[in-house]
Amino acid sequence: MQVAEEKVRKYIKEIRIKGTRLLQKMVQEPSTRGEESKAQAVVIEKCRELGLEMDIWEIGGDGLASHPAFCSDRSNFKGTPNAVGIMRGTGGGKSMILNGHIDVVPAGDSNDWHRDPYSGYIESGKLYGRGSTDMKGGTASLLMAIEAIKNTGIKLKGDVIFQSVIEEESGGAGSLAAVLRGYKAEAAIIPEPTNMKLFPKQQGSMWFRIAVKGKGAHGGTSYEGINAIEKAMLVIDRLRTLEKERNERITDPFFDHIPIPIPINIGKLHAGDWPSSVPDLAIIEGRMGVAPNETQEEAKREMAEALSDVSVMDAWLRIHKPKLDWFGASWVPGDLDPEHELVRVLSESYTAVKIQKPFIEASPWATDGGILSKIGGIPVVVFGPGVTEMAHQANEYIKLEDVFDSAEIIALTLLKWCEISE
Amino acid sequence: MQVAEEKVRKYIKEIRIKGTRLLQKMVQEPSTRGEESKAQAVVIEKCRELGLEMDIWEIGGDGLASHPAFCSDRSNFKGTPNAVGIMRGTGGGKSMILNGHIDVVPAGDSNDWHRDPYSGYIESGKLYGRGSTDMKGGTASLLMAIEAIKNTGIKLKGDVIFQSVIEEESGGAGSLAAVLRGYKAEAAIIPEPTNMKLFPKQQGSMWFRIAVKGKGAHGGTSYEGINAIEKAMLVIDRLRTLEKERNERITDPFFDHIPIPIPINIGKLHAGDWPSSVPDLAIIEGRMGVAPNETQEEAKREMAEALSDVSVMDAWLRIHKPKLDWFGASWVPGDLDPEHELVRVLSESYTAVKIQKPFIEASPWATDGGILSKIGGIPVVVFGPGVTEMAHQANEYIKLEDVFDSAEIIALTLLKWCEISE
Repeated sequence: MQVAEEKVRKYIKEIRIKGTRLLQKMVQEPSTRGEESKAQAVVIEKCRELGLEMDIWEIGGDGLASHPAFCSDRSNFKGTPNAVGIMRGTGGGKSMILNGHIDVVPAGDSNDWHRDPYSGYIESGKLYGRGSTDMKGGTASLLMAIEAIKNTGIKLKGDVIFQSVIEEESGGAGSLAAVLRGYKAEAAIIPEPTNMKLFPKQQGSMWFRIAVKGKGAHGGTSYEGINAIEKAMLVIDRLRTLEKERNERITDPFFDHIPIPIPINIGKLHAGDWPSSVPDLAIIEGRMGVAPNETQEEAKREMAEALSDVSVMDAWLRIHKPKLDWFGASWVPGDLDPEHELVRVLSESYTAVKIQKPFIEASPWATDGGILSKIGGIPVVVFGPGVTEMAHQANEYIKLEDVFDSAEIIALTLLKWCEISE
Repeated sequence: MQVAEEKVRKYIKEIRIKGTRLLQKMVQEPSTRGEESKAQAVVIEKCRELGLEMDIWEIGGDGLASHPAFCSDRSNFKGTPNAVGIMRGTGGGKSMILNGHIDVVPAGDSNDWHRDPYSGYIESGKLYGRGSTDMKGGTASLLMAIEAIKNTGIKLKGDVIFQSVIEEESGGAGSLAAVLRGYKAEAAIIPEPTNMKLFPKQQGSMWFRIAVKGKGAHGGTSYEGINAIEKAMLVIDRLRTLEKERNERITDPFFDHIPIPIPINIGKLHAGDWPSSVPDLAIIEGRMGVAPNETQEEAKREMAEALSDVSVMDAWLRIHKPKLDWFGASWVPGDLDPEHELVRVLSESYTAVKIQKPFIEASPWATDGGILSKIGGIPVVVFGPGVTEMAHQANEYIKLEDVFDSAEIIALTLLKWCEISE
């Protein structure tokens, strides 16, 4: 065992440049929603090089759209496939899913980036670009781990099921499709950007849209209208209070160090189309965090009640009630017992590589882990090399050292979890 | 004098059908921005029929684009000429400019119209169509007044300078070009849709854009970002206070009945592009009203100072100052002394036709009157037959009776102002 461990760790150190080039190629293919195919092709090419059993399919079958956990406003996923690559075990060992998403969020204002958002530029050990941290760096570490085991001639007893899925940033339809296609395992690791922390629990979330009506008028006689932006501000104020109320209730010690365990994020506010007109409609869109120990339905009910409160207090809104919709993305929270075997094995591997114990916490966001665990019944830990605070940010980067360490930790975990076939 | 007055009033009554047909033809030529030529051709044909001295030119010369009051995002005005037709006086009388704009705002959602927006359909004494009220009906009344004087054989001492200009809806480059070409007079009437009220004073306005920076972050760790929407709300709050401060200073009795004489309208707020991300940029766009007795520069300075105030009070905005731009449209306010001779003569003419005194007020919006008065030094009253509340609306219409009354009132005003040459 120790020999095998040393062999794979040494091998990963030798393919650092190769792994970096792989990550760079992945980042240089912008894979925002609907545009995932080219980045996915880079991953698929790598899987083929490693000789994995491939399953590449456009999701949408297997009763996907009618599944209660299905959450997407896309009805057609043509041209943007899911990819699964299996390193088949010799039998008798425990199986493991390694799951990464290929989609990235938009780059935002390009003026905020020091370089092209998809440059893949490397400086001081950091690789820059949208998706580097969230989560192509994690996926690269998975592929490096598999490459090391494969190319050092080690055979595992259990199957390793590598998944590169679409739609994580919009509600997890890609991972749901993989579950519905039959991919199950005795554990799963998702290398989202956790700053190398282990997250057996994850915050769930849901997207909401609130339409606030106003009444149009010419801007020169604005007093004849009702400004939808001003009414939307009342709604936003109430949502900030609701956020406060909900977070004061959180007592799980895993959240002790997190300023706002389950935030309500106001992500978009779009109102009006002419400077000289009073806007008659404001659309608020955002993300509501869901605690690991509450249901999405409970959270939805609280939001609806908060909007009722606003309506009661404002004469206009009392008649023209804000309209609440839950749309687009929705992530089920994750809640694995921190004493689970998977957490133990991953922690040991972490300690072997980093010579210190890992932080084990609750994540401030949900991942496809909720779908794998709540729908697939698979124990999940989220653990990865990305820099949490750089996800979705301008000048997003990942520390390459963490990608390499993560590859070693995952490789060691696979050796222990799936067992070496002698 | 009284004979002449009776003659022109009688003549205008006789050409009601002809005047209606003229207006109908003008409305049936959609003259949105850049598409004014066909409607302008209808006007020019009428001027030629009346034997006016014509000056038709594509604006852009005479230092137009470099003039401080120039406001247009068009750099080329080819194919959309200004037209001036002069009824030359015999000499010794006061001159008068009669100014109407030929451009109309877009029709908007055609589903909101009961008929084609350019039908010119007549029902119950109302003529329907985009531009009927704003302001082809006013222009038709000018042409009917000139026709009546001309065809009854009356000669005036002063020149009557009829102007049909482009670009009023986008900042007044057409009227500015006419001023720069040398067209001046001792008075001007602009028959914008005032509901037959006299507006010697007009609210000016300018469009502003304020960019408020935030700091992006993942919505699940929203506390690591700075929400640009929340910062924009601070800016909007300050603008509402500024609006209050500015309006409390207005003591002109003309504004007594107006709740907010010079509004600051927040017309647009667009921020964020992803529900799960903390928005890093909010763009506010709006219209700032300018009092008749202040300059645009003074108003701009107050807005800049208000934004400085916000910056001082917020740690983030102190470093990331909101960025203020003045863009797009800008209308100079108008401010004629209500005791001015022009107001008196026009009021008398009104009273003669309507057998009641006119309402004399300040308008809640600016017109090309600001350019004629502040740049051209010409005393201006805005007075016309259009229905104020139908301007820029679906199913815009004008009451034909008001067009005819307006033609009589303007004809009487010309007789008195320019004097009859015996």
